[in-house]
Amino acid sequence: MEKAAETPPVIILVAPQMGENIGATARAMLNFGLTEMRIVTPRDGWPNQAAIDMAAGAFDIMPPPQIYGSLADAIGDLHFTLATTARPRHMISQVYSPREGIKQMADQYRAQPAGAFKAGLVFGRERSGLENDEIVLSQGIISIPSNPAFSSFNLGQSVLLLAYEWFLSQMSADVAAHRYHTGDTGPAPQSQIEALWSRLETALDDGAFFREPDLKFTMARNIRNMLSRAQITEQEARTFHGIISALEGKKPPLTPKSARNKKAAE
Amino acid sequence: MEKAAETPPVIILVAPQMGENIGATARAMLNFGLTEMRIVTPRDGWPNQAAIDMAAGAFDIMPPPQIYGSLADAIGDLHFTLATTARPRHMISQVYSPREGIKQMADQYRAQPAGAFKAGLVFGRERSGLENDEIVLSQGIISIPSNPAFSSFNLGQSVLLLAYEWFLSQMSADVAAHRYHTGDTGPAPQSQIEALWSRLETALDDGAFFREPDLKFTMARNIRNMLSRAQITEQEARTFHGIISALEGKKPPLTPKSARNKKAAE
Repeated sequence: MEKAAETPPVIILVAPQMGENIGATARAMLNFGLTEMRIVTPRDGWPNQAAIDMAAGAFDIMPPPQIYGSLADAIGDLHFTLATTARPRHMISQVYSPREGIKQMADQYRAQPAGAFKAGLVFGRERSGLENDEIVLSQGIISIPSNPAFSSFNLGQSVLLLAYEWFLSQMSADVAAHRYHTGDTGPAPQSQIEALWSRLETALDDGAFFREPDLKFTMARNIRNMLSRAQITEQEARTFHGIISALEGKKPPLTPKSARNKKAAE
Repeated sequence: MEKAAETPPVIILVAPQMGENIGATARAMLNFGLTEMRIVTPRDGWPNQAAIDMAAGAFDIMPPPQIYGSLADAIGDLHFTLATTARPRHMISQVYSPREGIKQMADQYRAQPAGAFKAGLVFGRERSGLENDEIVLSQGIISIPSNPAFSSFNLGQSVLLLAYEWFLSQMSADVAAHRYHTGDTGPAPQSQIEALWSRLETALDDGAFFREPDLKFTMARNIRNMLSRAQITEQEARTFHGIISALEGKKPPLTPKSARNKKAAE
Protein backbone atom coordinates (compact mmCIF):
# COMPACT_ATOMS: atom_id res chain seq x y z
CA MET A 1 0.00 0.00 0.00
CA GLU A 2 1.20 3.45 -0.82
CA LYS A 3 1.55 6.01 1.89
CA ALA A 4 -1.95 7.01 2.92
CA ALA A 5 -3.05 10.62 2.85
CA GLU A 6 -1.99 12.30 6.09
CA THR A 7 -5.49 13.34 6.91
CA PRO A 8 -8.01 10.96 5.35
CA PRO A 9 -11.53 12.30 4.90
CA VAL A 10 -13.70 13.10 7.87
CA ILE A 11 -17.10 11.41 8.13
CA ILE A 12 -19.80 13.88 9.14
CA LEU A 13 -23.17 12.55 10.32
CA VAL A 14 -25.96 15.11 10.32
CA ALA A 15 -28.58 14.59 13.05
CA PRO A 16 -28.39 10.80 13.27
CA GLN A 17 -31.20 9.28 15.28
CA MET A 18 -30.23 5.71 16.13
CA GLY A 19 -27.13 5.04 18.17
CA GLU A 20 -26.91 1.68 16.42
CA ASN A 21 -26.34 3.46 13.13
CA ILE A 22 -23.57 5.61 14.60
CA GLY A 23 -21.91 2.45 15.89
CA ALA A 24 -22.22 0.67 12.57
CA THR A 25 -20.73 3.75 10.93
CA ALA A 26 -17.70 3.69 13.23
CA ARG A 27 -17.15 0.03 12.45
CA ALA A 28 -17.45 0.64 8.71
CA MET A 29 -15.04 3.60 8.90
CA LEU A 30 -12.33 1.86 10.85
CA ASN A 31 -12.44 -1.23 8.63
CA PHE A 32 -11.16 1.07 5.92
CA GLY A 33 -8.84 3.22 7.97
CA LEU A 34 -11.03 6.28 8.51
CA THR A 35 -10.91 7.49 12.10
CA GLU A 36 -12.35 11.00 12.32
CA MET A 37 -16.10 11.15 12.93
CA ARG A 38 -18.03 14.35 13.50
CA ILE A 39 -21.66 14.35 14.56
CA VAL A 40 -24.05 17.27 14.12
CA THR A 41 -26.79 17.38 16.77
CA PRO A 42 -27.17 13.63 17.51
CA ARG A 43 -30.73 13.04 18.65
CA ASP A 44 -29.75 11.04 21.73
CA GLY A 45 -26.67 13.06 22.66
CA TRP A 46 -23.20 11.70 23.10
CA PRO A 47 -21.76 9.38 24.35
CA ASN A 48 -24.35 6.82 23.32
CA GLN A 49 -24.18 3.26 24.66
CA ALA A 50 -26.13 1.78 21.74
CA ALA A 51 -23.51 3.22 19.39
CA ILE A 52 -20.65 1.79 21.41
CA ASP A 53 -22.31 -1.63 21.56
CA MET A 54 -22.64 -1.75 17.76
CA ALA A 55 -19.13 -0.54 16.97
CA ALA A 56 -17.33 -3.86 17.53
CA GLY A 57 -14.68 -2.00 19.50
CA ALA A 58 -14.02 0.70 16.90
CA PHE A 59 -14.54 3.55 19.38
CA ASP A 60 -11.73 2.13 21.52
CA ILE A 61 -9.32 2.78 18.66
CA MET A 62 -10.68 5.93 17.04
CA PRO A 63 -10.44 9.35 18.62
CA PRO A 64 -13.77 10.29 20.20
CA PRO A 65 -16.32 11.78 17.78
CA GLN A 66 -16.60 15.56 17.93
CA ILE A 67 -20.07 17.02 18.36
CA TYR A 68 -21.28 20.15 16.53
CA GLY A 69 -24.34 22.33 16.58
CA SER A 70 -24.56 22.83 12.82
CA LEU A 71 -23.21 21.35 9.62
CA ALA A 72 -21.54 24.66 8.76
CA ASP A 73 -19.55 24.47 12.02
CA ALA A 74 -18.72 20.83 11.47
CA ILE A 75 -17.13 21.40 8.08
CA GLY A 76 -15.66 24.84 8.73
CA ASP A 77 -12.04 23.67 8.46
CA LEU A 78 -12.57 21.37 5.47
CA HIS A 79 -11.62 22.30 1.91
CA PHE A 80 -13.80 19.91 -0.03
CA THR A 81 -16.86 17.98 1.01
CA LEU A 82 -19.23 15.74 -0.88
CA ALA A 83 -22.75 15.08 0.35
CA THR A 84 -24.02 11.53 0.06
CA THR A 85 -27.64 11.74 -0.92
CA ALA A 86 -30.13 10.97 -3.60
CA ARG A 87 -30.01 13.62 -6.28
CA PRO A 88 -32.01 16.59 -5.08
CA ARG A 89 -34.75 17.82 -7.34
CA HIS A 90 -34.81 21.41 -8.46
CA MET A 91 -31.14 21.93 -7.75
CA ILE A 92 -28.16 22.25 -10.01
CA SER A 93 -25.69 19.67 -8.83
CA GLN A 94 -22.50 17.89 -9.66
CA VAL A 95 -23.46 14.27 -9.07
CA TYR A 96 -20.70 11.71 -8.75
CA SER A 97 -20.73 7.98 -8.42
CA PRO A 98 -18.98 6.82 -5.23
CA ARG A 99 -15.94 5.81 -7.26
CA GLU A 100 -15.68 9.02 -9.24
CA GLY A 101 -16.42 11.27 -6.26
CA ILE A 102 -13.75 9.59 -4.16
CA LYS A 103 -11.35 9.82 -7.10
CA GLN A 104 -11.93 13.57 -7.27
CA MET A 105 -11.25 13.78 -3.55
CA ALA A 106 -8.12 11.64 -3.67
CA ASP A 107 -6.79 13.58 -6.66
CA GLN A 108 -7.11 16.80 -4.73
CA TYR A 109 -5.31 15.36 -1.72
CA ARG A 110 -2.45 14.38 -4.03
CA ALA A 111 -2.34 17.79 -5.67
CA GLN A 112 -1.96 19.69 -2.39
CA PRO A 113 1.01 19.78 -0.02
CA ALA A 114 0.70 17.38 2.87
CA GLY A 115 -1.59 18.75 5.55
CA ALA A 116 -2.85 21.61 3.40
CA PHE A 117 -6.04 19.89 2.30
CA LYS A 118 -8.71 18.11 4.25
CA ALA A 119 -11.90 16.65 2.87
CA GLY A 120 -15.12 15.26 4.26
CA LEU A 121 -18.09 13.08 3.41
CA VAL A 122 -21.46 14.27 4.70
CA PHE A 123 -24.32 11.87 5.48
CA GLY A 124 -27.87 12.88 6.34
CA ARG A 125 -30.58 11.78 8.71
CA GLU A 126 -31.73 8.16 8.57
CA ARG A 127 -35.10 8.85 6.98
CA SER A 128 -35.13 12.32 5.55
CA GLY A 129 -31.51 12.68 4.45
CA LEU A 130 -29.98 16.11 3.97
CA GLU A 131 -31.90 19.31 3.46
CA ASN A 132 -31.15 21.41 0.41
CA ASP A 133 -29.65 24.14 2.60
CA GLU A 134 -27.20 21.56 3.86
CA ILE A 135 -26.44 20.11 0.44
CA VAL A 136 -25.36 23.47 -0.97
CA LEU A 137 -22.52 23.62 1.56
CA SER A 138 -20.78 20.79 -0.27
CA GLN A 139 -18.95 20.97 -3.58
CA GLY A 140 -20.91 18.07 -5.00
CA ILE A 141 -23.06 15.05 -4.39
CA ILE A 142 -22.30 11.38 -4.28
CA SER A 143 -25.24 9.23 -5.24
CA ILE A 144 -24.95 5.48 -4.72
CA PRO A 145 -26.33 3.66 -7.75
CA SER A 146 -28.80 0.94 -6.88
CA ASN A 147 -31.69 -1.23 -7.95
CA PRO A 148 -34.51 1.13 -8.99
CA ALA A 149 -37.02 -1.38 -7.63
CA PHE A 150 -35.48 -1.60 -4.15
CA SER A 151 -33.13 1.02 -2.77
CA SER A 152 -32.83 0.75 0.98
CA PHE A 153 -29.42 1.63 2.40
CA ASN A 154 -28.92 2.26 6.05
CA LEU A 155 -26.38 4.77 7.28
CA GLY A 156 -23.71 2.20 8.06
CA GLN A 157 -24.02 0.65 4.61
CA SER A 158 -23.66 4.00 2.85
CA VAL A 159 -20.58 4.87 4.89
CA LEU A 160 -19.16 1.40 4.27
CA LEU A 161 -19.34 1.80 0.49
CA LEU A 162 -17.71 5.24 0.52
CA ALA A 163 -15.01 4.21 3.00
CA TYR A 164 -14.30 1.17 0.82
CA GLU A 165 -13.84 3.37 -2.23
CA TRP A 166 -11.53 5.64 -0.26
CA PHE A 167 -9.44 2.70 0.92
CA LEU A 168 -9.12 1.40 -2.65
CA SER A 169 -8.12 4.85 -3.88
CA GLN A 170 -5.16 4.75 -1.49
CA MET A 171 -3.95 1.34 -2.61
CA SER A 172 -1.52 0.85 -5.42
CA ALA A 173 -3.08 -0.80 -8.45
CA ASP A 174 -1.13 -4.03 -8.19
CA VAL A 175 -2.25 -4.63 -4.62
CA ALA A 176 -5.82 -3.76 -5.51
CA ALA A 177 -6.24 -6.24 -8.30
CA HIS A 178 -5.22 -9.83 -8.08
CA ARG A 179 -2.54 -11.99 -6.60
CA TYR A 180 -1.65 -15.56 -7.13
CA HIS A 181 -0.62 -16.93 -3.74
CA THR A 182 1.47 -20.06 -3.86
CA GLY A 183 2.84 -20.18 -0.32
CA ASP A 184 6.23 -21.84 0.10
CA THR A 185 6.27 -23.13 -3.43
CA GLY A 186 6.15 -21.08 -6.63
CA PRO A 187 4.70 -21.37 -10.11
CA ALA A 188 6.42 -24.13 -12.03
CA PRO A 189 8.76 -22.90 -14.77
CA GLN A 190 7.82 -23.91 -18.27
CA SER A 191 10.64 -26.48 -18.37
CA GLN A 192 8.93 -28.42 -15.58
CA ILE A 193 5.63 -28.26 -17.42
CA GLU A 194 7.39 -29.57 -20.52
CA ALA A 195 8.99 -32.38 -18.54
CA LEU A 196 5.66 -33.28 -17.00
CA TRP A 197 3.98 -33.27 -20.37
CA SER A 198 6.71 -35.32 -21.92
CA ARG A 199 6.33 -37.95 -19.25
CA LEU A 200 2.54 -37.89 -19.47
CA GLU A 201 2.65 -38.23 -23.24
CA THR A 202 4.87 -41.29 -23.01
CA ALA A 203 2.62 -42.80 -20.36
CA LEU A 204 -0.44 -42.13 -22.48
CA ASP A 205 1.23 -43.67 -25.52
CA ASP A 206 2.10 -46.72 -23.45
CA GLY A 207 -1.47 -46.91 -22.26
CA ALA A 208 -2.86 -46.69 -25.82
CA PHE A 209 -4.68 -43.51 -24.91
CA PHE A 210 -4.43 -42.09 -28.41
CA ARG A 211 -6.49 -44.65 -30.21
CA GLU A 212 -6.96 -42.54 -33.28
CA PRO A 213 -3.57 -41.29 -34.43
CA ASP A 214 -5.18 -38.55 -36.51
CA LEU A 215 -6.58 -36.99 -33.38
CA LYS A 216 -3.46 -37.25 -31.29
CA PHE A 217 -2.19 -33.80 -32.17
CA THR A 218 -5.42 -32.08 -31.17
CA MET A 219 -5.93 -34.13 -28.03
CA ALA A 220 -2.36 -33.54 -26.94
CA ARG A 221 -2.71 -29.86 -27.50
CA ASN A 222 -5.88 -29.76 -25.42
CA ILE A 223 -4.21 -31.54 -22.54
CA ARG A 224 -1.24 -29.21 -22.66
CA ASN A 225 -3.64 -26.31 -22.67
CA MET A 226 -5.25 -27.55 -19.48
CA LEU A 227 -1.85 -27.86 -17.85
CA SER A 228 -1.02 -24.31 -18.81
CA ARG A 229 -4.30 -22.80 -17.73
CA ALA A 230 -4.10 -24.39 -14.32
CA GLN A 231 -0.92 -22.43 -13.57
CA ILE A 232 0.42 -25.28 -11.51
CA THR A 233 3.17 -24.84 -8.95
CA GLU A 234 6.40 -26.79 -8.58
CA GLN A 235 4.84 -28.75 -5.73
CA GLU A 236 1.81 -29.57 -7.83
CA ALA A 237 4.03 -30.69 -10.71
CA ARG A 238 5.66 -33.14 -8.32
CA THR A 239 2.23 -34.28 -7.16
CA PHE A 240 1.23 -34.81 -10.78
CA HIS A 241 4.30 -36.98 -11.38
CA GLY A 242 3.25 -39.02 -8.37
CA ILE A 243 -0.24 -39.41 -9.80
CA ILE A 244 1.15 -40.71 -13.08
CA SER A 245 3.38 -43.14 -11.25
CA ALA A 246 0.50 -44.34 -9.14
CA LEU A 247 -1.75 -44.82 -12.14
CA GLU A 248 1.02 -46.70 -13.89
CA GLY A 249 1.35 -48.97 -10.87
CA LYS A 250 4.81 -47.69 -10.05
CA LYS A 251 5.83 -46.49 -6.64
CA PRO A 252 6.05 -42.70 -6.84
CA PRO A 253 9.58 -41.33 -6.54
CA LEU A 254 10.30 -39.66 -3.24
CA THR A 255 10.28 -35.89 -3.46
CA PRO A 256 12.90 -34.10 -1.39
CA LYS A 257 10.28 -33.15 1.18
CA SER A 258 8.67 -36.55 1.51
CA ALA A 259 12.15 -38.03 1.71
CA ARG A 260 12.82 -35.75 4.64
CA ASN A 261 9.55 -36.69 6.27
CA LYS A 262 10.28 -40.35 5.74
CA LYS A 263 13.67 -39.96 7.28
CA ALA A 264 12.26 -38.05 10.23
CA ALA A 265 9.69 -40.78 10.75
CA GLU A 266 12.32 -43.51 10.85
CA MET B 1 -27.80 0.83 -17.67
CA GLU B 2 -26.91 -1.90 -20.12
CA LYS B 3 -28.94 -5.05 -20.23
CA ALA B 4 -28.10 -6.98 -17.09
CA ALA B 5 -26.88 -10.55 -17.23
CA GLU B 6 -29.87 -12.87 -17.47
CA THR B 7 -28.84 -14.80 -14.42
CA PRO B 8 -26.85 -12.60 -12.06
CA PRO B 9 -24.67 -14.39 -9.54
CA VAL B 10 -26.20 -16.47 -6.79
CA ILE B 11 -25.28 -15.63 -3.19
CA ILE B 12 -24.51 -18.78 -1.20
CA LEU B 13 -24.37 -18.55 2.60
CA VAL B 14 -22.67 -21.48 4.29
CA ALA B 15 -24.03 -22.33 7.74
CA PRO B 16 -25.05 -18.82 8.81
CA GLN B 17 -25.92 -18.58 12.48
CA MET B 18 -27.78 -15.32 13.01
CA GLY B 19 -31.06 -14.70 11.24
CA GLU B 20 -30.26 -10.98 11.42
CA ASN B 21 -27.26 -11.54 9.16
CA ILE B 22 -29.33 -13.46 6.63
CA GLY B 23 -31.80 -10.58 6.59
CA ALA B 24 -29.08 -7.95 6.18
CA THR B 25 -27.69 -10.05 3.35
CA ALA B 26 -31.03 -10.09 1.55
CA ARG B 27 -31.31 -6.33 1.88
CA ALA B 28 -27.76 -5.83 0.60
CA MET B 29 -28.39 -8.17 -2.34
CA LEU B 30 -31.63 -6.61 -3.49
CA ASN B 31 -30.22 -3.07 -3.27
CA PHE B 32 -27.93 -4.14 -6.08
CA GLY B 33 -30.32 -6.33 -8.02
CA LEU B 34 -29.25 -9.78 -6.84
CA THR B 35 -32.22 -11.98 -6.00
CA GLU B 36 -31.11 -15.60 -5.73
CA MET B 37 -30.01 -16.67 -2.25
CA ARG B 38 -29.05 -20.19 -1.30
CA ILE B 39 -28.40 -21.23 2.29
CA VAL B 40 -26.41 -24.27 3.34
CA THR B 41 -27.54 -25.72 6.69
CA PRO B 42 -28.77 -22.54 8.43
CA ARG B 43 -28.34 -23.02 12.17
CA ASP B 44 -31.87 -21.90 13.03
CA GLY B 45 -33.63 -23.45 10.03
CA TRP B 46 -35.78 -21.65 7.54
CA PRO B 47 -37.95 -19.56 7.44
CA ASN B 48 -36.44 -17.37 10.13
CA GLN B 49 -38.38 -14.44 11.55
CA ALA B 50 -35.26 -12.54 12.64
CA ALA B 51 -34.03 -12.66 9.05
CA ILE B 52 -37.33 -11.40 7.69
CA ASP B 53 -37.41 -8.56 10.25
CA MET B 54 -33.94 -7.36 9.18
CA ALA B 55 -34.53 -7.58 5.45
CA ALA B 56 -36.45 -4.29 5.07
CA GLY B 57 -38.97 -6.11 2.89
CA ALA B 58 -36.45 -7.70 0.55
CA PHE B 59 -37.84 -11.21 1.04
CA ASP B 60 -41.22 -9.98 -0.22
CA ILE B 61 -39.62 -9.27 -3.59
CA MET B 62 -36.98 -11.98 -3.93
CA PRO B 63 -37.81 -15.61 -4.62
CA PRO B 64 -37.58 -17.61 -1.40
CA PRO B 65 -34.05 -18.76 -0.47
CA GLN B 66 -33.32 -22.38 -1.30
CA ILE B 67 -31.90 -24.55 1.47
CA TYR B 68 -29.17 -27.14 0.91
CA GLY B 69 -27.45 -29.79 2.97
CA SER B 70 -23.96 -29.17 1.62
CA LEU B 71 -22.03 -26.55 -0.29
CA ALA B 72 -21.34 -29.06 -3.05
CA ASP B 73 -25.09 -29.48 -3.56
CA ALA B 74 -25.69 -25.74 -3.40
CA ILE B 75 -23.26 -24.95 -6.21
CA GLY B 76 -23.81 -28.06 -8.29
CA ASP B 77 -25.35 -26.19 -11.23
CA LEU B 78 -22.94 -23.22 -11.16
CA HIS B 79 -20.04 -22.83 -13.58
CA PHE B 80 -17.85 -20.43 -11.65
CA THR B 81 -17.83 -19.54 -7.99
CA LEU B 82 -15.58 -17.34 -5.91
CA ALA B 83 -15.26 -17.80 -2.17
CA THR B 84 -15.18 -14.64 -0.08
CA THR B 85 -12.70 -15.24 2.69
CA ALA B 86 -9.41 -14.19 4.14
CA ARG B 87 -6.59 -15.82 2.23
CA PRO B 88 -6.21 -19.35 3.56
CA ARG B 89 -2.78 -20.34 4.73
CA HIS B 90 -1.05 -23.34 3.28
CA MET B 91 -3.18 -23.36 0.17
CA ILE B 92 -2.40 -22.39 -3.37
CA SER B 93 -5.03 -19.86 -4.34
CA GLN B 94 -6.03 -17.29 -6.90
CA VAL B 95 -6.83 -14.30 -4.72
CA TYR B 96 -8.82 -11.47 -6.25
CA SER B 97 -9.84 -8.10 -4.95
CA PRO B 98 -13.63 -7.65 -5.00
CA ARG B 99 -13.36 -5.51 -8.11
CA GLU B 100 -11.08 -7.84 -10.04
CA GLY B 101 -12.94 -10.97 -8.96
CA ILE B 102 -16.28 -9.54 -10.06
CA LYS B 103 -14.69 -8.39 -13.30
CA GLN B 104 -13.54 -11.94 -13.99
CA MET B 105 -17.06 -13.13 -13.31
CA ALA B 106 -18.75 -10.48 -15.45
CA ASP B 107 -16.30 -11.12 -18.30
CA GLN B 108 -17.23 -14.79 -18.30
CA TYR B 109 -20.93 -14.00 -18.36
CA ARG B 110 -20.34 -11.83 -21.40
CA ALA B 111 -18.28 -14.48 -23.15
CA GLN B 112 -20.96 -17.17 -22.86
CA PRO B 113 -24.30 -17.42 -24.63
CA ALA B 114 -27.20 -16.11 -22.56
CA GLY B 115 -28.27 -18.67 -19.99
CA ALA B 116 -25.27 -20.93 -20.55
CA PHE B 117 -23.26 -19.61 -17.63
CA LYS B 118 -24.18 -19.07 -14.01
CA ALA B 119 -21.86 -17.90 -11.27
CA GLY B 120 -21.97 -17.66 -7.50
CA LEU B 121 -20.37 -15.95 -4.54
CA VAL B 122 -19.81 -18.11 -1.48
CA PHE B 123 -19.75 -16.68 2.06
CA GLY B 124 -18.77 -18.56 5.19
CA ARG B 125 -19.91 -18.78 8.79
CA GLU B 126 -19.98 -15.60 10.84
CA ARG B 127 -16.99 -16.40 13.02
CA SER B 128 -15.04 -19.22 11.48
CA GLY B 129 -15.57 -18.52 7.78
CA LEU B 130 -15.14 -21.27 5.21
CA GLU B 131 -13.24 -24.47 5.74
CA ASN B 132 -10.45 -25.35 3.33
CA ASP B 133 -12.48 -28.28 2.00
CA GLU B 134 -15.17 -25.78 1.07
CA ILE B 135 -12.78 -23.23 -0.41
CA VAL B 136 -11.34 -25.73 -2.89
CA LEU B 137 -14.76 -26.09 -4.51
CA SER B 138 -14.45 -22.54 -5.85
CA GLN B 139 -12.31 -21.34 -8.73
CA GLY B 140 -10.77 -18.62 -6.64
CA ILE B 141 -10.96 -16.39 -3.61
CA ILE B 142 -12.12 -12.84 -3.12
CA SER B 143 -10.42 -11.14 -0.22
CA ILE B 144 -11.75 -7.74 0.86
CA PRO B 145 -8.85 -5.38 1.52
CA SER B 146 -9.08 -3.60 4.84
CA ASN B 147 -7.31 -1.81 7.65
CA PRO B 148 -4.72 -4.24 9.03
CA ALA B 149 -5.33 -2.80 12.51
CA PHE B 150 -9.11 -3.36 12.47
CA SER B 151 -10.80 -5.77 10.14
CA SER B 152 -14.30 -6.60 11.30
CA PHE B 153 -16.84 -7.19 8.55
CA ASN B 154 -20.14 -8.80 9.25
CA LEU B 155 -21.83 -11.01 6.71
CA GLY B 156 -24.18 -8.31 5.41
CA GLN B 157 -21.31 -5.88 4.90
CA SER B 158 -19.26 -8.40 2.92
CA VAL B 159 -22.22 -9.23 0.70
CA LEU B 160 -22.96 -5.52 0.26
CA LEU B 161 -19.48 -4.79 -1.08
CA LEU B 162 -19.53 -7.68 -3.53
CA ALA B 163 -23.08 -6.95 -4.69
CA TYR B 164 -22.08 -3.31 -5.20
CA GLU B 165 -19.17 -4.34 -7.38
CA TRP B 166 -21.46 -6.61 -9.38
CA PHE B 167 -23.96 -3.81 -9.91
CA LEU B 168 -21.23 -1.46 -11.10
CA SER B 169 -19.90 -4.11 -13.48
CA GLN B 170 -23.30 -4.15 -15.18
CA MET B 171 -23.52 -0.38 -15.62
CA SER B 172 -22.21 1.41 -18.63
CA ALA B 173 -19.18 3.56 -17.88
CA ASP B 174 -20.90 6.87 -18.49
CA VAL B 175 -23.66 6.12 -16.02
CA ALA B 176 -21.15 4.90 -13.48
CA ALA B 177 -18.99 7.96 -13.38
CA HIS B 178 -20.31 11.44 -13.10
CA ARG B 179 -23.21 13.55 -14.23
CA TYR B 180 -23.81 17.22 -14.13
CA HIS B 181 -27.50 17.66 -13.37
CA THR B 182 -28.91 21.02 -14.34
CA GLY B 183 -32.63 20.32 -14.24
CA ASP B 184 -34.77 22.41 -16.57
CA THR B 185 -31.93 24.72 -17.45
CA GLY B 186 -28.65 23.78 -19.12
CA PRO B 187 -25.03 24.83 -18.99
CA ALA B 188 -24.63 28.35 -20.35
CA PRO B 189 -22.97 28.55 -23.77
CA GLN B 190 -19.70 30.41 -23.89
CA SER B 191 -21.35 33.40 -25.60
CA GLN B 192 -23.46 33.98 -22.50
CA ILE B 193 -20.39 33.74 -20.30
CA GLU B 194 -18.71 36.31 -22.56
CA ALA B 195 -21.71 38.61 -22.39
CA LEU B 196 -21.82 38.28 -18.62
CA TRP B 197 -18.12 39.00 -18.34
CA SER B 198 -18.38 41.97 -20.68
CA ARG B 199 -21.11 43.48 -18.56
CA LEU B 200 -19.27 42.72 -15.31
CA GLU B 201 -16.07 44.24 -16.65
CA THR B 202 -17.87 47.45 -17.55
CA ALA B 203 -19.53 47.57 -14.15
CA LEU B 204 -16.21 46.99 -12.43
CA ASP B 205 -14.56 49.70 -14.49
CA ASP B 206 -17.39 52.06 -13.57
CA GLY B 207 -16.92 51.15 -9.91
CA ALA B 208 -13.17 51.80 -10.05
CA PHE B 209 -12.53 48.17 -9.14
CA PHE B 210 -9.28 47.98 -11.07
CA ARG B 211 -7.30 50.51 -9.06
CA GLU B 212 -3.98 49.44 -10.43
CA PRO B 213 -4.18 49.35 -14.21
CA ASP B 214 -1.08 47.15 -14.44
CA LEU B 215 -2.88 44.44 -12.56
CA LYS B 216 -6.14 44.62 -14.47
CA PHE B 217 -5.22 42.00 -17.00
CA THR B 218 -4.31 39.43 -14.35
CA MET B 219 -7.28 40.22 -12.13
CA ALA B 220 -9.66 40.07 -15.05
CA ARG B 221 -8.28 36.76 -16.13
CA ASN B 222 -8.69 35.35 -12.63
CA ILE B 223 -12.32 36.42 -12.48
CA ARG B 224 -13.02 34.91 -15.88
CA ASN B 225 -11.37 31.73 -14.68
CA MET B 226 -13.74 31.54 -11.72
CA LEU B 227 -16.71 32.01 -14.04
CA SER B 228 -15.49 29.17 -16.21
CA ARG B 229 -14.73 26.78 -13.41
CA ALA B 230 -18.14 27.24 -11.85
CA GLN B 231 -19.77 25.78 -14.98
CA ILE B 232 -22.75 28.04 -14.53
CA THR B 233 -26.07 27.38 -16.16
CA GLU B 234 -28.19 29.71 -18.26
CA GLN B 235 -30.44 30.32 -15.27
CA GLU B 236 -27.44 31.13 -13.10
CA ALA B 237 -26.10 33.52 -15.75
CA ARG B 238 -29.42 35.37 -15.55
CA THR B 239 -29.17 35.38 -11.77
CA PHE B 240 -25.68 36.81 -12.03
CA HIS B 241 -26.93 39.64 -14.25
CA GLY B 242 -29.51 40.36 -11.61
CA ILE B 243 -26.82 40.46 -8.92
CA ILE B 244 -24.83 42.99 -10.93
CA SER B 245 -27.93 45.11 -11.45
CA ALA B 246 -28.78 44.97 -7.79
CA LEU B 247 -25.27 45.93 -6.74
CA GLU B 248 -25.35 48.79 -9.20
CA GLY B 249 -28.61 49.95 -7.68
CA LYS B 250 -30.57 49.19 -10.83
CA LYS B 251 -33.74 47.18 -10.92
CA PRO B 252 -32.86 43.82 -12.50
CA PRO B 253 -34.38 43.24 -15.94
CA LEU B 254 -37.20 40.74 -16.01
CA THR B 255 -36.13 37.35 -17.30
CA PRO B 256 -38.61 35.56 -19.54
CA LYS B 257 -39.50 33.23 -16.69
CA SER B 258 -39.93 35.86 -14.02
CA ALA B 259 -41.91 37.89 -16.55
CA ARG B 260 -44.21 34.90 -16.96
CA ASN B 261 -44.52 34.50 -13.21
CA LYS B 262 -45.25 38.17 -12.82
CA LYS B 263 -47.92 37.96 -15.47
CA ALA B 264 -49.44 34.88 -13.87
CA ALA B 265 -49.53 36.65 -10.53
CA GLU B 266 -51.41 39.59 -11.96
